[in-house]
Amino acid sequence: MSISEFQEMMHHLYFHRDSKRGVTCTYNWLVDEVKELGEALKTDDKKALEDEFADVFAWLASLANVVDVDLEKAATTKYNNKCPKCQNTPCECPFPK
Amino acid sequence: MSISEFQEMMHHLYFHRDSKRGVTCTYNWLVDEVKELGEALKTDDKKALEDEFADVFAWLASLANVVDVDLEKAATTKYNNKCPKCQNTPCECPFPK
Repeated sequence: MSISEFQEMMHHLYFHRDSKRGVTCTYNWLVDEVKELGEALKTDDKKALEDEFADVFAWLASLANVVDVDLEKAATTKYNNKCPKCQNTPCECPFPK
Repeated sequence: MSISEFQEMMHHLYFHRDSKRGVTCTYNWLVDEVKELGEALKTDDKKALEDEFADVFAWLASLANVVDVDLEKAATTKYNNKCPKCQNTPCECPFPK
């Protein structure tokens, strides 16, 4: 599935709620989902971990819908088969980053 | 671009660094990027906002690479054209959530 198709699915499923909830509250939900992902990373439950990755991505797409950002366009514009900082493939920026 | 293709691009560009940095530090970078997204949401700079969405998605894909999670499979398994909670299209869960 393309990044745009996933964002569009989120729009179809949730935009009536996301738009009502608004930017700040939707962002706060994303933050909470990132925290839940952090907890799942400490366990050995692969299914729970996959669910939390799905949730973070879903809320990121929902937030993008609320502020009218095309996530696929944004991601592929900045990350276009080379590191946006050093312009190399693979990245050769000084480590650590 | 598919979700998997984006994750694979992140693998090609950054896995040599992500794997060395490890799970905790890569997660901490994701958290920092989410904070930067929160700051960008307070501005009127659309380009900066798009860049921050790109960065959060990129670090989410990097983290998924480090823990060997297929982000597209995880996202489309949980979100399969219906709300995973109420099973409706669009979602009819009690609001707010």
